[in-house]
Amino acid sequence: MKEEILHAVDILGTVTFAVSGVFAAMQKKLDLFGIMIIAFITAIGGGTLRDMLIGDLPVVWMRSAETPLIILVSAGASVLFRNVIRNFQVTLFIFDSLGLGFFTVLGMQKGITFGLSPGICIALGTITGCFGGVIRDILLNNIPLIFRKEIYATACILGGLLYFLLLQTNFSKDWLDVVVIIIIFLIRFLAMRFKWELPVIYSKKTDDR
Amino acid sequence: MKEEILHAVDILGTVTFAVSGVFAAMQKKLDLFGIMIIAFITAIGGGTLRDMLIGDLPVVWMRSAETPLIILVSAGASVLFRNVIRNFQVTLFIFDSLGLGFFTVLGMQKGITFGLSPGICIALGTITGCFGGVIRDILLNNIPLIFRKEIYATACILGGLLYFLLLQTNFSKDWLDVVVIIIIFLIRFLAMRFKWELPVIYSKKTDDR
Amino acid sequence: MKEEILHAVDILGTVTFAVSGVFAAMQKKLDLFGIMIIAFITAIGGGTLRDMLIGDLPVVWMRSAETPLIILVSAGASVLFRNVIRNFQVTLFIFDSLGLGFFTVLGMQKGITFGLSPGICIALGTITGCFGGVIRDILLNNIPLIFRKEIYATACILGGLLYFLLLQTNFSKDWLDVVVIIIIFLIRFLAMRFKWELPVIYSKKTDDR
Repeated sequence: MKEEILHAVDILGTVTFAVSGVFAAMQKKLDLFGIMIIAFITAIGGGTLRDMLIGDLPVVWMRSAETPLIILVSAGASVLFRNVIRNFQVTLFIFDSLGLGFFTVLGMQKGITFGLSPGICIALGTITGCFGGVIRDILLNNIPLIFRKEIYATACILGGLLYFLLLQTNFSKDWLDVVVIIIIFLIRFLAMRFKWELPVIYSKKTDDR
Repeated sequence: MKEEILHAVDILGTVTFAVSGVFAAMQKKLDLFGIMIIAFITAIGGGTLRDMLIGDLPVVWMRSAETPLIILVSAGASVLFRNVIRNFQVTLFIFDSLGLGFFTVLGMQKGITFGLSPGICIALGTITGCFGGVIRDILLNNIPLIFRKEIYATACILGGLLYFLLLQTNFSKDWLDVVVIIIIFLIRFLAMRFKWELPVIYSKKTDDR
Repeated sequence: MKEEILHAVDILGTVTFAVSGVFAAMQKKLDLFGIMIIAFITAIGGGTLRDMLIGDLPVVWMRSAETPLIILVSAGASVLFRNVIRNFQVTLFIFDSLGLGFFTVLGMQKGITFGLSPGICIALGTITGCFGGVIRDILLNNIPLIFRKEIYATACILGGLLYFLLLQTNFSKDWLDVVVIIIIFLIRFLAMRFKWELPVIYSKKTDDR
């Protein structure tokens, strides 16, 4: 039961990440190929970078047809039904935030399997959850959104810290992942609802290097 | 004989990719070092990304001096003779398109050697052929050209599909690579000649995430 | 004694690379998370790319807590004391140049350990020293500074050539690394002092591909 729900969250997360890529690419007036590539990279970019950094190669999405097919179908459907989908912003936001939590926990667990220290595992979780969007923004010639606005990566880091804190306690290991996914979801949801933002820091006169 | 011809296509492709990097870099008024780096990345970027994704490390161009030397010499010559080379656009275009076909087939064959599924092999072939140019465009702060205009990656994908279709038939395995290289070359050539383009899809009101 | 001094140079280099990332990020008005990420990537980006290219995975900074902690603390301190630090430009420049020399030699020595040829080792050294700044510039949506102005990578390449030249002679292997670090430092320092630059090459009418 729990496994099935987590698998569903995985798929929903992949789908919404791909959809977010499609809409970002359409804003920049890319052609059909460009849109599909941006959808792919948004959905699998974070996990790909994680696997390249720790050396789990070939990267995971190359080992089965499931993820590429899900992305292909959901990106194609988003292009076709782009005017309908736009009315489901809240639903997409909820799936996106659940996906963020799921991918973060997945990345952390992979770091633990590779014997890496807690701080590095949290970094890997954050990379898994957030860097698909970062690479999407770079390819579309934007400064990555999560570096400028929104509590996004911060939700992953806080969730990651909680994960390792709970690991030190008697908290049931069976539900640890579910709890952290929900916490990350809630932080992201509340941050959006109440427009929480990190401070922007700059000074008037700065030099480049 | 066939081996020698394919090796010549490999070298011509590397040279023209490097030349295309030099000209793109000169447009952005880079200095000599910047020009050489962009030439390198255009020529070896696609294969490098492929090798990093599948874990064939150190990446191929690090294992022999041949490719780096070819790039160094041809990029240096393009800088010196930039006003002459500009008169050979059609020749460069033909070599570039042949190189595109060759690198695509090379990437697919490597995917097959690594035991990956056909869809992934086609993706790897397309990455090998196209992503040097993508990384070049990112470094030069442009949205990658192949995401916006031109049938380029599409030629690789169609050629890749044909490759795996012919593999199912009795078609001679000796000539499979040559035929697919020619098909990719022809699609690219005809697309340029008749200005075929993929549809650009966008909608008036879109939100970023 | 020598080991301790080199370790100090390593740390000072990491700190100043992180500080340069913080200031570049503040110029673009990033939020706190964005600033920390840019600091990290500037400090470890070059070594990370090197390790991903040669397959020394997980990448080095993941294997101990020291480097991440140094970056976290120095980036945090730079944000807090940004108005004080700005008065220590010359000191930062000296540490940055020493770090450049150290990281270049480190990258070359790793290439030698992996059995790669001298040209590739010099490339790896240059990547180690320079590509953190390149990735920083890409993320901040700038054309990388070292492709346009300043003798920076050129100092690494000249230092690298000297390294392999001296390796052919009877020069003491114990002091080879120290000498090359100092030479790279001096080239960079003199280039800045006397405003040496590489020629910028461009032509009036160029085509993109």
